[in-house]
Amino acid sequence: MLPANYDTQDCSVARALELLGERWTLLIIRDALHGITRYDDFLARLGAPTSTLARRLGRLVDAGILTRHAYETRPPREEYRLTTRGRELAVVIAALREWGDRHLSAAGPPADYTHRGCGGTAITEMTCDTCGEHLRAEDIQRTERRPLRRPPAAPGGTTFTSYGGN
Amino acid sequence: MLPANYDTQDCSVARALELLGERWTLLIIRDALHGITRYDDFLARLGAPTSTLARRLGRLVDAGILTRHAYETRPPREEYRLTTRGRELAVVIAALREWGDRHLSAAGPPADYTHRGCGGTAITEMTCDTCGEHLRAEDIQRTERRPLRRPPAAPGGTTFTSYGGN
Repeated sequence: MLPANYDTQDCSVARALELLGERWTLLIIRDALHGITRYDDFLARLGAPTSTLARRLGRLVDAGILTRHAYETRPPREEYRLTTRGRELAVVIAALREWGDRHLSAAGPPADYTHRGCGGTAITEMTCDTCGEHLRAEDIQRTERRPLRRPPAAPGGTTFTSYGGN
Repeated sequence: MLPANYDTQDCSVARALELLGERWTLLIIRDALHGITRYDDFLARLGAPTSTLARRLGRLVDAGILTRHAYETRPPREEYRLTTRGRELAVVIAALREWGDRHLSAAGPPADYTHRGCGGTAITEMTCDTCGEHLRAEDIQRTERRPLRRPPAAPGGTTFTSYGGN
């Protein structure tokens, strides 16, 4: 069984967390977004246990979030690059970072994130794709298509990989 | 020691995950954003072990993300309400959900999220606070104020609660 398996939840948040919710995984993606590609560089920046790091990287490759590319043939060496689906996690990382900057960083943000074009500050927000308005939680209406809670899975049963087709 | 303590990271993402990265915590916040306030309702929707749920709720109260309010005096009963800092996590949950909807939900999104004002679709995006442009990861420049990686903490040393003042 996966360490973060939310079997009874028919929910994209739960499904995303089954992949991303393991310890170190979102920090690996953060570093990959900062341009880190090589195992040794991930290791130096994270200080994660080596076997954990190797397992997490392998799982992210399996999930199509990272791909392996050979950058040397003798000896064979590979680097890890974000796929398009992986780069789309930038908004998740940015949202976590902004919240942490605001509420958990009394010494001020450890880094600045600015728009390369005009130098303004990059911000993450919820907006309306039709009228463009900035949205807060209370401006958003949720309409269920299916119930959130599923019956508990049979032993050895459903995981997120088989969820999608149901 | 905390189960998700990233001692060596001076990073708001790591600090946020120390609070939010534990199993069930972000799903509790998701449900709170859906209007759930009572222990029994969290339990019914999540199916989390009772002792885990109670511990997670307590930790969220300690972190100022939820507050306890008495809604009955005989017998005394309390409900959990999101604080402002808690409601600001809506953007984190929305970013995770949208990514999961796009990449892990072959049967289509389990729910729709629309703007109460005009009925448009709520989306989460990175924008520039100056020119308003929509930003992708590659449009954003990161400038470190302090190095990301700290020396490993002394035994019994730093946790996120003492981080802020450094």
